Amino acid sequence: MFLTRTEYDRGVNTFSPEGRLFQVEYAIESIKLGSTAIGIKTKEGVVLAVEKRVTSPLLEPSSVEKIMEIDEHIGCAMSGLIADARTLVEHARVETQNHRFSYGEAMNVESTTQALCDLALRFGEGDEESMSRPFGVSLLIAGHDENGSSLYYTDPSGTFWQCSAKAIGSGSEGADSSLQEQHNKDMTLQEAETVALSILKQVMEEKVTPNNVDIAKVAPTYHLYSPSEVETVISRL
Amino acid sequence: MFLTRTEYDRGVNTFSPEGRLFQVEYAIESIKLGSTAIGIKTKEGVVLAVEKRVTSPLLEPSSVEKIMEIDEHIGCAMSGLIADARTLVEHARVETQNHRFSYGEAMNVESTTQALCDLALRFGEGDEESMSRPFGVSLLIAGHDENGSSLYYTDPSGTFWQCSAKAIGSGSEGADSSLQEQHNKDMTLQEAETVALSILKQVMEEKVTPNNVDIAKVAPTYHLYSPSEVETVISRL
Amino acid sequence: MFLTRTEYDRGVNTFSPEGRLFQVEYAIESIKLGSTAIGIKTKEGVVLAVEKRVTSPLLEPSSVEKIMEIDEHIGCAMSGLIADARTLVEHARVETQNHRFSYGEAMNVESTTQALCDLALRFGEGDEESMSRPFGVSLLIAGHDENGSSLYYTDPSGTFWQCSAKAIGSGSEGADSSLQEQHNKDMTLQEAETVALSILKQVMEEKVTPNNVDIAKVAPTYHLYSPSEVETVISRL
Amino acid sequence: MFLTRTEYDRGVNTFSPEGRLFQVEYAIESIKLGSTAIGIKTKEGVVLAVEKRVTSPLLEPSSVEKIMEIDEHIGCAMSGLIADARTLVEHARVETQNHRFSYGEAMNVESTTQALCDLALRFGEGDEESMSRPFGVSLLIAGHDENGSSLYYTDPSGTFWQCSAKAIGSGSEGADSSLQEQHNKDMTLQEAETVALSILKQVMEEKVTPNNVDIAKVAPTYHLYSPSEVETVISRL
Amino acid sequence: MFLTRTEYDRGVNTFSPEGRLFQVEYAIESIKLGSTAIGIKTKEGVVLAVEKRVTSPLLEPSSVEKIMEIDEHIGCAMSGLIADARTLVEHARVETQNHRFSYGEAMNVESTTQALCDLALRFGEGDEESMSRPFGVSLLIAGHDENGSSLYYTDPSGTFWQCSAKAIGSGSEGADSSLQEQHNKDMTLQEAETVALSILKQVMEEKVTPNNVDIAKVAPTYHLYSPSEVETVISRL
Amino acid sequence: MFLTRTEYDRGVNTFSPEGRLFQVEYAIESIKLGSTAIGIKTKEGVVLAVEKRVTSPLLEPSSVEKIMEIDEHIGCAMSGLIADARTLVEHARVETQNHRFSYGEAMNVESTTQALCDLALRFGEGDEESMSRPFGVSLLIAGHDENGSSLYYTDPSGTFWQCSAKAIGSGSEGADSSLQEQHNKDMTLQEAETVALSILKQVMEEKVTPNNVDIAKVAPTYHLYSPSEVETVISRL
Amino acid sequence: MFLTRTEYDRGVNTFSPEGRLFQVEYAIESIKLGSTAIGIKTKEGVVLAVEKRVTSPLLEPSSVEKIMEIDEHIGCAMSGLIADARTLVEHARVETQNHRFSYGEAMNVESTTQALCDLALRFGEGDEESMSRPFGVSLLIAGHDENGSSLYYTDPSGTFWQCSAKAIGSGSEGADSSLQEQHNKDMTLQEAETVALSILKQVMEEKVTPNNVDIAKVAPTYHLYSPSEVETVISRL
Repeated sequence: MFLTRTEYDRGVNTFSPEGRLFQVEYAIESIKLGSTAIGIKTKEGVVLAVEKRVTSPLLEPSSVEKIMEIDEHIGCAMSGLIADARTLVEHARVETQNHRFSYGEAMNVESTTQALCDLALRFGEGDEESMSRPFGVSLLIAGHDENGSSLYYTDPSGTFWQCSAKAIGSGSEGADSSLQEQHNKDMTLQEAETVALSILKQVMEEKVTPNNVDIAKVAPTYHLYSPSEVETVISRL
Repeated sequence: MFLTRTEYDRGVNTFSPEGRLFQVEYAIESIKLGSTAIGIKTKEGVVLAVEKRVTSPLLEPSSVEKIMEIDEHIGCAMSGLIADARTLVEHARVETQNHRFSYGEAMNVESTTQALCDLALRFGEGDEESMSRPFGVSLLIAGHDENGSSLYYTDPSGTFWQCSAKAIGSGSEGADSSLQEQHNKDMTLQEAETVALSILKQVMEEKVTPNNVDIAKVAPTYHLYSPSEVETVISRL
Repeated sequence: MFLTRTEYDRGVNTFSPEGRLFQVEYAIESIKLGSTAIGIKTKEGVVLAVEKRVTSPLLEPSSVEKIMEIDEHIGCAMSGLIADARTLVEHARVETQNHRFSYGEAMNVESTTQALCDLALRFGEGDEESMSRPFGVSLLIAGHDENGSSLYYTDPSGTFWQCSAKAIGSGSEGADSSLQEQHNKDMTLQEAETVALSILKQVMEEKVTPNNVDIAKVAPTYHLYSPSEVETVISRL
Repeated sequence: MFLTRTEYDRGVNTFSPEGRLFQVEYAIESIKLGSTAIGIKTKEGVVLAVEKRVTSPLLEPSSVEKIMEIDEHIGCAMSGLIADARTLVEHARVETQNHRFSYGEAMNVESTTQALCDLALRFGEGDEESMSRPFGVSLLIAGHDENGSSLYYTDPSGTFWQCSAKAIGSGSEGADSSLQEQHNKDMTLQEAETVALSILKQVMEEKVTPNNVDIAKVAPTYHLYSPSEVETVISRL
Repeated sequence: MFLTRTEYDRGVNTFSPEGRLFQVEYAIESIKLGSTAIGIKTKEGVVLAVEKRVTSPLLEPSSVEKIMEIDEHIGCAMSGLIADARTLVEHARVETQNHRFSYGEAMNVESTTQALCDLALRFGEGDEESMSRPFGVSLLIAGHDENGSSLYYTDPSGTFWQCSAKAIGSGSEGADSSLQEQHNKDMTLQEAETVALSILKQVMEEKVTPNNVDIAKVAPTYHLYSPSEVETVISRL
Repeated sequence: MFLTRTEYDRGVNTFSPEGRLFQVEYAIESIKLGSTAIGIKTKEGVVLAVEKRVTSPLLEPSSVEKIMEIDEHIGCAMSGLIADARTLVEHARVETQNHRFSYGEAMNVESTTQALCDLALRFGEGDEESMSRPFGVSLLIAGHDENGSSLYYTDPSGTFWQCSAKAIGSGSEGADSSLQEQHNKDMTLQEAETVALSILKQVMEEKVTPNNVDIAKVAPTYHLYSPSEVETVISRL
Repeated sequence: MFLTRTEYDRGVNTFSPEGRLFQVEYAIESIKLGSTAIGIKTKEGVVLAVEKRVTSPLLEPSSVEKIMEIDEHIGCAMSGLIADARTLVEHARVETQNHRFSYGEAMNVESTTQALCDLALRFGEGDEESMSRPFGVSLLIAGHDENGSSLYYTDPSGTFWQCSAKAIGSGSEGADSSLQEQHNKDMTLQEAETVALSILKQVMEEKVTPNNVDIAKVAPTYHLYSPSEVETVISRL
């Protein structure tokens, strides 16, 4: 019942009688307002593709960053509050750099994801780096390490899962169904690019152009596609 | 009466007139939303079996970790908020490692359980490591030390009990009754595997496969079953 | 009047217009939900007896600890929140060990009780060790020092009294009346065992067995009875 | 009007529109629930007498301490929350010991009383030693120093007054009237003992015995009467 | 309107829509409940006179201190919460002593008053020495320094004014009018004593005696009148 | 609508739905209760004139300080809460002294004003020096530095503007209109004195005397007019 | 629905059920009350133009600073709360100076913008430099570095975008449409000046004069136009 609900949902870190944490659920809700992002893992590497909402022709498309590099072997796509995502990515970058400095080798992808989620989990704890509310962002983390390629999905509760393919953001429901139909373990990286962009095309309300989507791969190193590379993928649709 | 209740249940750490701590009770309630986990102690060692909710074929089953190693002689199965469980397990891992370093020997199972519960009890205290709300997770801790095998059950209030067998999570009520009927002190580890999985099968709504259950044993060291080992147990049902 | 009452009773540490501290009273109320414990002082030493609520045949009775050793000359029985009691007992153990280390002799029983109550009193003060709410537990502390045997009773307000006999928990009202009738200063330790267990038997709803009661004595050192020793006392009823 | 009042009285340290501090007034109210204590100053020294509420024959009367020594030349009787009184007395003991250590002489009685009240005044300030609510206790402080004998009365607001005689607790109103009638500056210590006990007898609902009253004097050093000394005073009534 | 008002007046340090700070105004209100104090500046020095409310014949009049020495050249009379006044006076004493120690000379009267008011102003700021509410006290500060005699009046807002004469407390309104009529710049100290006491006599409901008034002067050093000196002034009325 | 408004205006530092900060607006409102102050910049220097509300003939007019020196080349006139103004002025004095000490030259007027406003802006931030509410005061800061004479106006939001002439306080609306009519860039300092005082005379309800106004100039150093100098200006009206 | 909304919008950092952060949205609302500012990027550099609200002829137009220099290669125009903008600009100035000191070269424009936004994002976190509410200001940051000229737009949520042209403040909606029509990539700096001022003229309610607008360029260094330079641009309209 709604009245009962309102009594619990403002406490940042309080259980409701049914054992729910509403602030986390509302943060997850904020992702549903975000732009759509898709990740697909193949044997050759991982592809990330995102919708960029360029609301005005005066906006530089390249400054709407929805895919970011964490380390040379890890990149991520985001949906939700961009400023929150930047804080998480910045934290992950420091962690991976520290790891390289301390151990002389790259941090593996799961540890990097765990480090990100540790920060996300500790909201409301009054730590120096943590936030007073949940981070309003979901990430698709693509990486390559000694275990091969991997794709992780994180949500605002600080939980993460490994996936073979995943969509987040406002169009995620339809995109996830399409991914289940079209994804198979043996698809090539090029096929994955095509599938990701064709699904993104379905959930976007405008024509797909190099200006309103971004594509990146980690295969085995991070590479953000140039406008002409994106154009090449579009031409294959 | 409900109206009276709501006046106390949002205070994280406040007694109601009847002497109850509602936030802890609500956290316990959150376990009832979790997946089912079962632990059985035998003379040969302890078996843990959990239901894994793999909600999408695109999810890597191995990344849904509901059974985790704490030390080579201790493992645990969890039900409730996964991110909370990870924090507790990470804390226990540091404690057991410190113990090995300081005393040159393994930490015993009860001390490890106590250390976990000390952290769980101190929610709302503003400590660096503690949370501002109760941990929304129950654990089944299986271990082996100089006292032989043991199985502990912890709840969000920071209390723990030693059991010969125990089920937690959404199917725990039915599973506990079945355990009381089928458990006996002299069962072999293999019999325990079969009983655990057959009970789990009853409470799960789908067919049991190596993808949607995990099994582990501590006998006397922790071992997580490979998919083929799980398949072997399934074939015995 | 109830409406007025609710306006004061959630403030952890606030006086009501009549000068009452409701959170402490509610914590005292929480003891009335607890299992019954009985302590009897004799010239030969002190006897503690507790009801253990073993809710399932799968629970290890020995892991339901309601009587704990503080030092070799002090033990205590508890009723209320077990996790809270463990924190207090752990604090007392550290205090008595520190005392032995600093002064080369055992801490006396009243000082130990005072140290426990100092911690209990400081709830809501934001100290490192103190709690943000009252401790929801009562203790019967039995000990022996240069003043002979003694039995103390503590409540959640941080107050303590010395008693010749005392019952706490859900059956305390009836048990206290029985104690007043049956206790006398010259009873032997064996008589005290029998009286304690026969009174416990009255307030428990099930048959008394070595599985659902614990007995301990401090005479002059702490000793927890083995199941067969408990059986011997039961056989005398 | 009551409704208006409730809007201010829960703020621990907030003025009402009429300039009142309700939490302090409510703490003063809590003293009216306490047992009665009486102090009388004579030229030979100060007498303190208190009612002890021994609610059960199983309680050790000597463990109900309502009169305590602060230093060898200062003692105090209390009414209200015993645990709060213990904190104040413990603070005063440390202060007097520090003074002896630093200056090689006893702390005078007014300075000791001031030190006690400084702690009482600072409730709600978040200091390490101070409380988050007013101390719910009144004290009668009897002492002897270079200025001769003196009797101080403190209340929860941290204010103190010097008196020639004073009663506190539930029977204070009647006892104060009797004291005004019966006290004179030239009475002997023995006369003061008799007056104190006869007034206490009036306000108590049961027969006065060495078990339910305590008497102490500071003349010029603190002395708590033994049961037989109390019996002697009773016999003079 | 009253309803609107209540919405702002509990915030310790919050402006109302009209730009008022209600908690300060309520603290000022608390002074109106206090005993009356009067200060008069003459060329020969400053006179302070206060009403002492000795509510019981058992109270030592000398322990009701409403006039206190700050330094040998500064004294003050107070109205309101005595314990608050003591804190302010103690603070001023430390400041003047520090000044003597650091500069080898007496602190001047305005600087001392400013130091007092700095502390009073900072309520609600969470400093170590400051209070969580306004100080509920007004002071009349009399002093003598290189600028001659001076009389300052402070209120709970931390503001101060220099006056030639001033009354504070419950009788201040009538007393201030009388002062305006009777004060002139050329009156002698003896005339000031007589005027102060005769005005005090008007506002008090009982006969003026050395027991229920205190008089002090700073001319040029602080001197509290003995009972016989007070008797002399009374005899001149 | 009023009801909506009350929901936001008590939050010290919270935006309303229309993007307003009500506590700052209410602090600005508190200035409208204050006495009027006027500043006029000329080529020869800046003149400040204030109304002093001397509510009683017993008050020393010189102790009602509404114009204060910050450094020898900077002075300020204030309207609002005097104690708040003193805190700001004291802060500015320390800043200018530090600047002289560190750089061997006077701090310029704009930097001094900025330093004042930095402190004013940070209310509610929990800093050591900042307040938990906005400063309820406006200042007119007059100064002279290498850029010549300047007059700044600050408000409780921590914003400042440079003006050629400005009035603040309860009479500011009328006074500002008069200033716009009568001010011109080429007026002499003497003309500015006359204009300032004649405008002040209009908004004050009583006769202007050296007792109820203060005048100061910075030309190029700060000088507070003596009563006879003020009398001279009055005589020119 | 409005009622539901009010339950979430006062929590500084709390998600509403739809996943919105109302305090940030209200801060963005506060920008709509601000004066209009326009930025246009050309190949020759960036032009900034702002409306200055000079509410009184007595105000020095030059002291209404809506365009400020951050470093010699970066400037910014602001709309919203000026005092908030000053804090952000001061922070950016320190960052760019530190960068020059540490690396011996100018900080690039995006890093400077990111540093500004990091501070803006952390409101409500209790850091030393951060605010307890969102910064109520938007900035247009113009700069030139090794990547050529760039124009960034920041909002109170701590997010930023790179633009070719952008308007902020109360007239932004109309101004943005005009910019989309009139802007082209190849316009000269002089054309940009004319376009910016002609659009500003449309949204302002009064005649454009050197007193009520400011113009600056970064081409490639920061330069604020003198009144005569502004007059030149006006004359071209």
